Amino acid sequence: MSDLLQNERIDDLHIKDYQIIQNKEGFCFGVDAVLLSDFARAKKDARVLDLGTGTGIIPILMEAKGKGNSFVGLEIQETSADMATRSVRLNHLEERIQIIQGDIKEAAVILQPSSFDVITSNPPYMNNFHGITNTHLPKAIARHEILCSLDDVVKAAAKLLKPGGSFFMVHKPFRMAEIMHKLMEYQLEPKCIRLVHPYVHKEPNMMLIEAVRGAKSMIKVEPPLIIYKDVNTYSDEIYDIYGITGP
Amino acid sequence: MSDLLQNERIDDLHIKDYQIIQNKEGFCFGVDAVLLSDFARAKKDARVLDLGTGTGIIPILMEAKGKGNSFVGLEIQETSADMATRSVRLNHLEERIQIIQGDIKEAAVILQPSSFDVITSNPPYMNNFHGITNTHLPKAIARHEILCSLDDVVKAAAKLLKPGGSFFMVHKPFRMAEIMHKLMEYQLEPKCIRLVHPYVHKEPNMMLIEAVRGAKSMIKVEPPLIIYKDVNTYSDEIYDIYGITGP
Repeated sequence: MSDLLQNERIDDLHIKDYQIIQNKEGFCFGVDAVLLSDFARAKKDARVLDLGTGTGIIPILMEAKGKGNSFVGLEIQETSADMATRSVRLNHLEERIQIIQGDIKEAAVILQPSSFDVITSNPPYMNNFHGITNTHLPKAIARHEILCSLDDVVKAAAKLLKPGGSFFMVHKPFRMAEIMHKLMEYQLEPKCIRLVHPYVHKEPNMMLIEAVRGAKSMIKVEPPLIIYKDVNTYSDEIYDIYGITGP
Repeated sequence: MSDLLQNERIDDLHIKDYQIIQNKEGFCFGVDAVLLSDFARAKKDARVLDLGTGTGIIPILMEAKGKGNSFVGLEIQETSADMATRSVRLNHLEERIQIIQGDIKEAAVILQPSSFDVITSNPPYMNNFHGITNTHLPKAIARHEILCSLDDVVKAAAKLLKPGGSFFMVHKPFRMAEIMHKLMEYQLEPKCIRLVHPYVHKEPNMMLIEAVRGAKSMIKVEPPLIIYKDVNTYSDEIYDIYGITGP
């Protein structure tokens, strides 16, 4: 691919022959993005926004799964937004997925308020700033709340969702209480939560949550999602989600 | 036992030879009370309050487990408070456990504010009033928010706990978001949560939560507590909690 810049590589997504451009030295998508695109629901005709889309992994996977019709990915970092734009082109998805370089804090100015059926986000998880050096700044921006806080993400989702629309987010369980409180502060009612445990007897290390704009209070807590059933053996559900066959 | 009234029976608690008086036609304690007394922590010298103590099962189990030094059980229903008082006497715990008949809404008048290290509660779970008839009123009061709401329980806990004290509650997962929001409204920060699933692949049907008065935001989500490992076979952890040996 003549399209690739230094340190970039192309990875197969194992769905519809789609591929993604990532930077080996930068932030590469993880199991959290894959689980979020599995957890999120969107009707075939839905207009879907991904807040902080990075390399565009979530809209590309959502499109591949038939979850939504048109997609916008908003990303503040120029190099990530550029990679995402090239990945969209690589998969011939220019008419389905639009990547916009911009700030989540400006999202309700850049985009039309109350215009999305579904919003997804895999935001920075960490609200501390230990060990951040300038050399790793692009990665740090994806992981730490440097350029956008939880409040910024939730506020943007609340403004951009249609009433009754769903916001799907993956985050860290240790922030669960704060997240629920924040969602409710912006009239995004938590309606479904799923905890992701590395093993059945371990604490969860990821949390998938759906909140619906203006809904009544009542949450469905899903069965635990277990990653490994044994050392080095994924659970059947993880094999299903990745679309690969178990051993 | 000459002490028993009509329809009452005495059940063994399988710990320290303690027993409890229950009414066969009334509300009998369930796995939720047992799991709460296991989940709750209290230092040996702690002063512990149980809000809505019913037949006194939680303070009796907490005392048996050495979790706390002195206990108060507050119960609004006269017949339940009377049974609890007789169970305390039956186990010779008059100097450790005091049962007070009173309303949770008056708790901060009846009892000294900011005076408890630990508060427990297994409150009514249901905030709807379908299918409630007068004939089952005593049971309905234990299950439905007829005489006290979630707000009443949380408000009382916030007033009666010492700063830094812990509130332990068992409740229904479908109210998780509302509960977290309510706790935070009263500066009771959710610090630990454990979901109880009948089977590993099923949704949870109980939730154990600890909130600490005035703590910083950060919650620990525990591994799932699984009740059955197979049909009719409890998990090892449940056998441990009940202090009985598995098959």
